[in-house]
Amino acid sequence: MCIIIRVVRIAVAGASGYAGGELLRLLLAHPSVEIGALTAGGNAGRRVGEFQPHLTPLADRVLGESTAEVLAGHDVVFLALPHGKSAEIAAQLGEGVLVVDCGADHRLADSVAWDRWYGGEHAGHWPYGLPELPGARDALRGTRRVAVPGCFPTVSSLALAPALAAGIVAPDVVVTAVTGTSGAGKSLKPHLLGAEVMGSLSAYGVGGVHRHTPEIAQNLSGVSGTPVRVSFTPVLAPLPRGILATCTAPLTGDGADAREVYEKAYAAEPFVRLLPEGQWPTTKATLGANTVQLQVAVDADAQRLVVVGAIDNLAKGTAGGAVQCMNIALGLPETTGLPTTGIAP
Amino acid sequence: MCIIIRVVRIAVAGASGYAGGELLRLLLAHPSVEIGALTAGGNAGRRVGEFQPHLTPLADRVLGESTAEVLAGHDVVFLALPHGKSAEIAAQLGEGVLVVDCGADHRLADSVAWDRWYGGEHAGHWPYGLPELPGARDALRGTRRVAVPGCFPTVSSLALAPALAAGIVAPDVVVTAVTGTSGAGKSLKPHLLGAEVMGSLSAYGVGGVHRHTPEIAQNLSGVSGTPVRVSFTPVLAPLPRGILATCTAPLTGDGADAREVYEKAYAAEPFVRLLPEGQWPTTKATLGANTVQLQVAVDADAQRLVVVGAIDNLAKGTAGGAVQCMNIALGLPETTGLPTTGIAP
Amino acid sequence: MCIIIRVVRIAVAGASGYAGGELLRLLLAHPSVEIGALTAGGNAGRRVGEFQPHLTPLADRVLGESTAEVLAGHDVVFLALPHGKSAEIAAQLGEGVLVVDCGADHRLADSVAWDRWYGGEHAGHWPYGLPELPGARDALRGTRRVAVPGCFPTVSSLALAPALAAGIVAPDVVVTAVTGTSGAGKSLKPHLLGAEVMGSLSAYGVGGVHRHTPEIAQNLSGVSGTPVRVSFTPVLAPLPRGILATCTAPLTGDGADAREVYEKAYAAEPFVRLLPEGQWPTTKATLGANTVQLQVAVDADAQRLVVVGAIDNLAKGTAGGAVQCMNIALGLPETTGLPTTGIAP
Amino acid sequence: MCIIIRVVRIAVAGASGYAGGELLRLLLAHPSVEIGALTAGGNAGRRVGEFQPHLTPLADRVLGESTAEVLAGHDVVFLALPHGKSAEIAAQLGEGVLVVDCGADHRLADSVAWDRWYGGEHAGHWPYGLPELPGARDALRGTRRVAVPGCFPTVSSLALAPALAAGIVAPDVVVTAVTGTSGAGKSLKPHLLGAEVMGSLSAYGVGGVHRHTPEIAQNLSGVSGTPVRVSFTPVLAPLPRGILATCTAPLTGDGADAREVYEKAYAAEPFVRLLPEGQWPTTKATLGANTVQLQVAVDADAQRLVVVGAIDNLAKGTAGGAVQCMNIALGLPETTGLPTTGIAP
Repeated sequence: MCIIIRVVRIAVAGASGYAGGELLRLLLAHPSVEIGALTAGGNAGRRVGEFQPHLTPLADRVLGESTAEVLAGHDVVFLALPHGKSAEIAAQLGEGVLVVDCGADHRLADSVAWDRWYGGEHAGHWPYGLPELPGARDALRGTRRVAVPGCFPTVSSLALAPALAAGIVAPDVVVTAVTGTSGAGKSLKPHLLGAEVMGSLSAYGVGGVHRHTPEIAQNLSGVSGTPVRVSFTPVLAPLPRGILATCTAPLTGDGADAREVYEKAYAAEPFVRLLPEGQWPTTKATLGANTVQLQVAVDADAQRLVVVGAIDNLAKGTAGGAVQCMNIALGLPETTGLPTTGIAP
Repeated sequence: MCIIIRVVRIAVAGASGYAGGELLRLLLAHPSVEIGALTAGGNAGRRVGEFQPHLTPLADRVLGESTAEVLAGHDVVFLALPHGKSAEIAAQLGEGVLVVDCGADHRLADSVAWDRWYGGEHAGHWPYGLPELPGARDALRGTRRVAVPGCFPTVSSLALAPALAAGIVAPDVVVTAVTGTSGAGKSLKPHLLGAEVMGSLSAYGVGGVHRHTPEIAQNLSGVSGTPVRVSFTPVLAPLPRGILATCTAPLTGDGADAREVYEKAYAAEPFVRLLPEGQWPTTKATLGANTVQLQVAVDADAQRLVVVGAIDNLAKGTAGGAVQCMNIALGLPETTGLPTTGIAP
Repeated sequence: MCIIIRVVRIAVAGASGYAGGELLRLLLAHPSVEIGALTAGGNAGRRVGEFQPHLTPLADRVLGESTAEVLAGHDVVFLALPHGKSAEIAAQLGEGVLVVDCGADHRLADSVAWDRWYGGEHAGHWPYGLPELPGARDALRGTRRVAVPGCFPTVSSLALAPALAAGIVAPDVVVTAVTGTSGAGKSLKPHLLGAEVMGSLSAYGVGGVHRHTPEIAQNLSGVSGTPVRVSFTPVLAPLPRGILATCTAPLTGDGADAREVYEKAYAAEPFVRLLPEGQWPTTKATLGANTVQLQVAVDADAQRLVVVGAIDNLAKGTAGGAVQCMNIALGLPETTGLPTTGIAP
Repeated sequence: MCIIIRVVRIAVAGASGYAGGELLRLLLAHPSVEIGALTAGGNAGRRVGEFQPHLTPLADRVLGESTAEVLAGHDVVFLALPHGKSAEIAAQLGEGVLVVDCGADHRLADSVAWDRWYGGEHAGHWPYGLPELPGARDALRGTRRVAVPGCFPTVSSLALAPALAAGIVAPDVVVTAVTGTSGAGKSLKPHLLGAEVMGSLSAYGVGGVHRHTPEIAQNLSGVSGTPVRVSFTPVLAPLPRGILATCTAPLTGDGADAREVYEKAYAAEPFVRLLPEGQWPTTKATLGANTVQLQVAVDADAQRLVVVGAIDNLAKGTAGGAVQCMNIALGLPETTGLPTTGIAP
């Protein structure tokens, strides 16, 4: 057997953070990738090994500055930066470079929504990196700009989209998503200290004020063809990685075809797994993998559909999704370099 | 100052389990209690210290059999037994003994619901041990039988009752409650092993099939005067103790008076704390304490009220609630021996 | 029965930190204490409830400045401050005030050791607050100055002192102590983030460089009457509280009397529990309690004695030990207000 | 570039357990392996997905019986069985099959030691699967039988072997190794329940009674050419995976060449990483990877060398080591299919 391997040269901006580290973990195992510049903000000039002790092969690489000069000259540039930073860098990189933005800048299509939720000028809308949504994969083929979805929108949208598209639920959804603490990044805030989070559960962003709310609404409204009301509450739990989203919506009928709707919607998707009846999602089954686990149930008493989804917020929820989009954009097989097995226990 | 201290003699059936251990931890610090017989099922004949290494003062006590003979002769008998066991023992103990049942046998008023959710003959309905519900405290004064609520119903009912009673939400609620693993007791099941639960989140009892669902519905329907639809999903998270419940319901108006409704409802309650605006519940703040932390928010976009509640499932959710009911039933000050400070971090 | 209760008025400096919070949790339950001024450094002017959400009764108290002016006028002042701060404040408070210093300033007797390990001028040596060490309790009676031991020295010294005092081991000990992360306080360091510590173990201060090393050596050398060599390594583990110390030393004989040595040493100690043979210490059994759990084993192959000790680093390891010393210094019963039951599971 | 890939067909006995699951996770990503029979004991007849929800590609495979009949016809058979089971199966499989035993049966060379520590008849000694030990790799080349080391002996031996081989420490070592709970397997024991282990540390097997003690002594004695005394204490910590071993021994000189000794010993080893000075091992950096992280320190006061080692007990400590040995035995490149990057955070 003979194989011709095409290699693309990639750079990662934000390589000292959690999303950057996960991108590098996946890209180190990607057969078509050569790792080029690794850059950071305040951590520029220091060794990768100080921040990513798990990335043994990159331990002695030195972080450069996150500037367009350093990031230029690569086929693909992954941006894992705070929001507001990516538009300018992308403009300087030129249209031929594939820019995959893990930040929020280009996720929302509506500039009014952008201003309300993030504030400031809207950087515009890029092809949205959730290929499993209807129509999304086509928009990603050949693109040179990708807006990687937020972690909560990834799992919530995939959990509810089939039911809304099929019309078996009303456009009025309630999502409570429990998350590990890496979703907040390495920001040094007291409530993220180990002593605070271990042994505790806490709510935050309650009442629809989390910035992922309009992104979920945008995705679901697009799928259903009608504005969808979204009640979204995140809960912080004591684990490093993982999101388990419990998503419910009122049934429009008896829900008898709910399972069939989901089976059809995801039959051909390599990264979405509808579990056998009786088995429920666990986040650990997706640890480090680019997979989504889903299960559906009909609650006849409450007349609601309940869909539970599990992902690894850093893998399918960020870096895995980003690599999947890179594969699509570059015309590589979509599953290249992406694990479908988690690490358990 | 002179104090006359009345001492009641108590027994605990199920003293080798988690609920039994927590009862004993609280009762050891209760100034009006003398600890009598401690009994168990399969663990009878063994030392308390083998099962409850944290209860130093009781380490060398030997567990008796959980029979009416051994439990007789006490003023108060706490039952922390599997469901189906308490009715017979209570009958043998006589009407003069205060029997506080931490199990499910006497929680549901409706024998049809009992048969559907638990199966078998309904043992009848005892005064329900959630004093903060309207009317409940009066029914507990002087009683000799108490049905201690389930842990999920405790926090969910207290989170939603004021809004339903005031009519500011519609009788159609969605509750997602994240829980530590001690709620499942010491049962040796693979999914409860430390290696499985640490670093993972999982759903169970999805689709309204958890046995606490009808209990929540009973409480909320009683408060609102109309049948309340309840969509309830529990989520298992990696911590030993604590429940954080996210409870939402559609607003009937604009929700402007929501905070005032909750302030009024719980102003006089010693164990329910509505947090200041901007501060959100954390379960650790309630660890080992008999307190409920609540916060409310109005989501104008989704037109829903969101109430988040936190408790320690073994304290206010089981054993603390049980001791609180004992205090009321015996005419002791309701807060006697019950901590309102948690252990943190 | 009639009781005359004497009430002492206390202040806590450093009330927004972990040690300060634990002092307040214990002092709230202490029958002879009235809580006066609560002070902080950068957090002065803010509500206690922002930092200590578990201390419901103190939620609305406002933090003052940690100055002698604010702390004056109390019978007892607890200092939970960074090292280097307490000598000056103590001097200003006057000799009549009981000052209990939870910091390191007055623990070491040797000013050369102070300079080597902490640097700067030595503030002098106060009576050492580990009453269970030979002679220590007498020095604490009536004192108006107490140096509360470090958390690692507390458990390590109690684990090894009896064997060294009895001469059944050589003065050459090896201690590996695993600790929860609250021992590092609320300092915002990346390696203390929840996402970093959960699911991981790490070493730090390896090679005898941790500042608790000379304190352990001081205690053990004092007990054995000869200089004791101490190899001490701390390990960081994913739990908020608790230290488990594995302490070994070469046997001088066959160790046949090891258990008897420990039984005699601690028979009268209310807070040290030598477990029954076959039962091993767990930190959770001491959570929130002022207890030490110990167990001893003779390893005939390795010719070493192995002693394992467990404490709660914030309770017996800091705040509980501090309150115990206050009781002794003031002539109160030593166990007043100090729990001997932990919180489990 | 043209590549000829040789594929070996493997079977895993014990595929429903933790070691079996980790073997399969690694083998799924191994380019030269085809997965054949998967067998179990009591779980035979059930789907892999019930026990290994993270192994999506194998979810619908059905477990066979762990008999020689089912396991026959493969190039390589991995045995992840309770001790005492492997000798008989290996005998039936024939000498041409590579049998990699993850159990203890063939680790100890000394039948007296076997009888003392495990009891019963000694099954004999197979080539020992720790290639990084002097001489071990040669014995593994071409072998058809491999005894995979225990997890504690793996990290402890690699941490101490260079110092003993170089004679810079005396043959009298003290090891305290903290471990996650997956090392105990899926056995349903109360002390392994999540509610027990989370938030707690506990000692077990204290006093040199853990069965890995003679295996460590065997390895280190072989390296040093003289009997080595081993004091070994395991500590159970709240994480699923990972071992951090603190290993100390008395210096014979001043230890000035310690770092150089370790640099030389492991310069060519692909899976052993001596960290840069100032950086300390963390288990999470090795999660899911076949790597060992080491760091050394000289404690001049205590006159001891301190070596800290970190591994993933299921990866390098069991399944990764097993695959590494398979690679060597079959003449494949030793690193084939084995990750050197961990999953963090």
